[in-house]
Amino acid sequence: MERITATYFIETPFEPEKAAEVLAGEQSSGTFVAVPGETAELKERFAARVESIEKITTVNQASIPSEKLSLGVYHQAVVKVSWSAENFGYNLPVLISTLQGNLYELRQFTGLKLMDIDFPDAYVAHFRGPRFGIEGCRKLTNVQSRPLIGTIIKPSIGLTPEQTAEMVQTLGEAGIDFVKDDELLSSSANSPFEKRVEAVMNVVNRLADKTGKKVMYAFNISGEVDEMLSRYETIIKAGGTCAMISLNSVGVSATKKICDIGALAIHGHRNGWGMMTRHPLLGIDFPAYQKLWRLTGVDQIHVNGIQNKFWESDDSVVRSIEACLKPMAAGYAVLPVVSSGQWGGQAFETWRRTKTVDLLYMAGGGIMAHPMGAAAGVAALQQAWKGAVDGLQLEEAVNIYPEFAKSVEKFGGK
Amino acid sequence: MERITATYFIETPFEPEKAAEVLAGEQSSGTFVAVPGETAELKERFAARVESIEKITTVNQASIPSEKLSLGVYHQAVVKVSWSAENFGYNLPVLISTLQGNLYELRQFTGLKLMDIDFPDAYVAHFRGPRFGIEGCRKLTNVQSRPLIGTIIKPSIGLTPEQTAEMVQTLGEAGIDFVKDDELLSSSANSPFEKRVEAVMNVVNRLADKTGKKVMYAFNISGEVDEMLSRYETIIKAGGTCAMISLNSVGVSATKKICDIGALAIHGHRNGWGMMTRHPLLGIDFPAYQKLWRLTGVDQIHVNGIQNKFWESDDSVVRSIEACLKPMAAGYAVLPVVSSGQWGGQAFETWRRTKTVDLLYMAGGGIMAHPMGAAAGVAALQQAWKGAVDGLQLEEAVNIYPEFAKSVEKFGGK
Repeated sequence: MERITATYFIETPFEPEKAAEVLAGEQSSGTFVAVPGETAELKERFAARVESIEKITTVNQASIPSEKLSLGVYHQAVVKVSWSAENFGYNLPVLISTLQGNLYELRQFTGLKLMDIDFPDAYVAHFRGPRFGIEGCRKLTNVQSRPLIGTIIKPSIGLTPEQTAEMVQTLGEAGIDFVKDDELLSSSANSPFEKRVEAVMNVVNRLADKTGKKVMYAFNISGEVDEMLSRYETIIKAGGTCAMISLNSVGVSATKKICDIGALAIHGHRNGWGMMTRHPLLGIDFPAYQKLWRLTGVDQIHVNGIQNKFWESDDSVVRSIEACLKPMAAGYAVLPVVSSGQWGGQAFETWRRTKTVDLLYMAGGGIMAHPMGAAAGVAALQQAWKGAVDGLQLEEAVNIYPEFAKSVEKFGGK
Repeated sequence: MERITATYFIETPFEPEKAAEVLAGEQSSGTFVAVPGETAELKERFAARVESIEKITTVNQASIPSEKLSLGVYHQAVVKVSWSAENFGYNLPVLISTLQGNLYELRQFTGLKLMDIDFPDAYVAHFRGPRFGIEGCRKLTNVQSRPLIGTIIKPSIGLTPEQTAEMVQTLGEAGIDFVKDDELLSSSANSPFEKRVEAVMNVVNRLADKTGKKVMYAFNISGEVDEMLSRYETIIKAGGTCAMISLNSVGVSATKKICDIGALAIHGHRNGWGMMTRHPLLGIDFPAYQKLWRLTGVDQIHVNGIQNKFWESDDSVVRSIEACLKPMAAGYAVLPVVSSGQWGGQAFETWRRTKTVDLLYMAGGGIMAHPMGAAAGVAALQQAWKGAVDGLQLEEAVNIYPEFAKSVEKFGGK
């Protein structure tokens, strides 16, 4: 049967070959002594297999402090390990427990990061994947040949449904494609979910009747399963096109249950992600992470942004965008969501480095705090992207586009 | 309204006061410029509040490598931040996004770990919590005044349902209280879930008819929501008493959906946990983690074990056991599952340091690979715990108990 291969970046004071064998053993037989019943035939069929070991370097200090290992030399290596899909079938949680379960606890490692996962096409084909993906989200918003422009309602928490709807009115009139709840807001004391959907969709639907364009609003349905199902229905009944889920907080199983319905585009927010990836030798890297969520069926996934306000480097952001745009089994497209401290200024560098417009380009304060108002904020972003794709430099775009010029004045100095 | 307080261990090159304010701002208003609508009244009601800052030390090297910060002095501090429960209500995923969401991505920190969460009793009271907990699991297994003794079917993956049932027969006859699937196995090519339940429960029920004692078998139902629901029903129909969930792989929402049913004790496996906690300055510490799962309703949760085969120190394991045994709102008891490289030998130190028998004490190889067979392995564990609680030293117990003596011969040298 087909095999799934995981690539790990490891650090170990042992010989990498030995450490890799411990990993493979733990994740397929998992005990510290041989037990009856562990036959050669059974091992051949179900054991994880170390496919390759590429030694990278040695260091003199452990990347993750360890009380149990004496100081010495630590080997860093890239290790590939494979499992037969027979072990877990098409069960994503058990696949996750196999590829990123107890192995992080092994004392043999002073660093271990899951870098990528190779799924055979036949395995991928079992999953529907993103129901809408890039093309579907373009159709729903009627946007072609440029990034979808989006924003987050701010302040994140505290506005009433009416205040939120009022902002959507302004943004929608300005031609915005996408608006979302903040991940901190689902249903709060002064913005109950159902009331917010009603108020916002009234505005969105009225604008759509007038202009023919329906703003995609991602309502944050993150919560318990039944609550998410009922809120999903609320969105559909009100004519909405998108629901947002905080992927790490909700988890794979419930997210898949929602994605499987397939009536709304699913905006996947990765808050909490920093914990899993921020250390170069611990956790999981984005290329592996986004594949799991594409199999789950998420249509849009956050990738941070160029010159973001967070810890992440531009190189890492570019790699994440590229990972999303690389087809799985010739499909399973997911729309990368560029977000965090963004305004039009970064459009030029984003375009230069990725040469793609298949993005949902989000600006929060960058739109809402534009000196000429939110509508000018939207215009400035559209202008910036047009300028970038037309081959202009930022300075040239400033001379042509007055709204963009104002945003450079306000945000360009930071 | 009541406030939830989170305690973080942070490291920052900025003044800790400033860094803490950024954290509080990001997690309640979350943008890099002031926006219209962010009124003083709204801030007073919904803003996160820095409650205290205790400076611990300064270091000259960042705990987590950072490309964006120049080298210098890094302050380590313990920071408490509170939020009004109005912000997220009783929605655990949104609570998680608030307390452990984007804050890990802030460039202001070169280390950030959520150490604990203080929930007001009134907040906790909204959740049922563990339906069975310690007392319920004791009743289901008919074990009083000593730890429940358990084991994991090994090899983890590859046995047929009949081979698994055969092992359960041997273990059950030997008086074992608890047996579980490995987290790597839910439904595999040669051990389909339903067939395994049927084969195992045939054995368990027949033994129960004969002895009056029903072995608790934790079947790993981890999977998609509908699959978990249907497998849960399968277990009930077959007369089972427990289901196992890989908490991190399945996620909070789907786990709560299962816990809410309340017909089976839920065995919470924390595989993947190492990624979240192994670095002293990144992720989440166990006292915070286990509280979230107790609110979710998990009845049993893994805490590793004394002298384990993993990276974790004994001190850390002891703290985890103590965290589980500390009541939340005078209740919400969760049974700590001691596991990993365990055999009877560690009973003495475990008892000495925790003075509790409210444990599910698990040995995998420690039972199944006992030189006199699995039945002797169970006896040896019971003997070790009796000896420990009776105040014997390990050497004294060896002289009294032959099965335990044999296990010391085999496992005592490692």
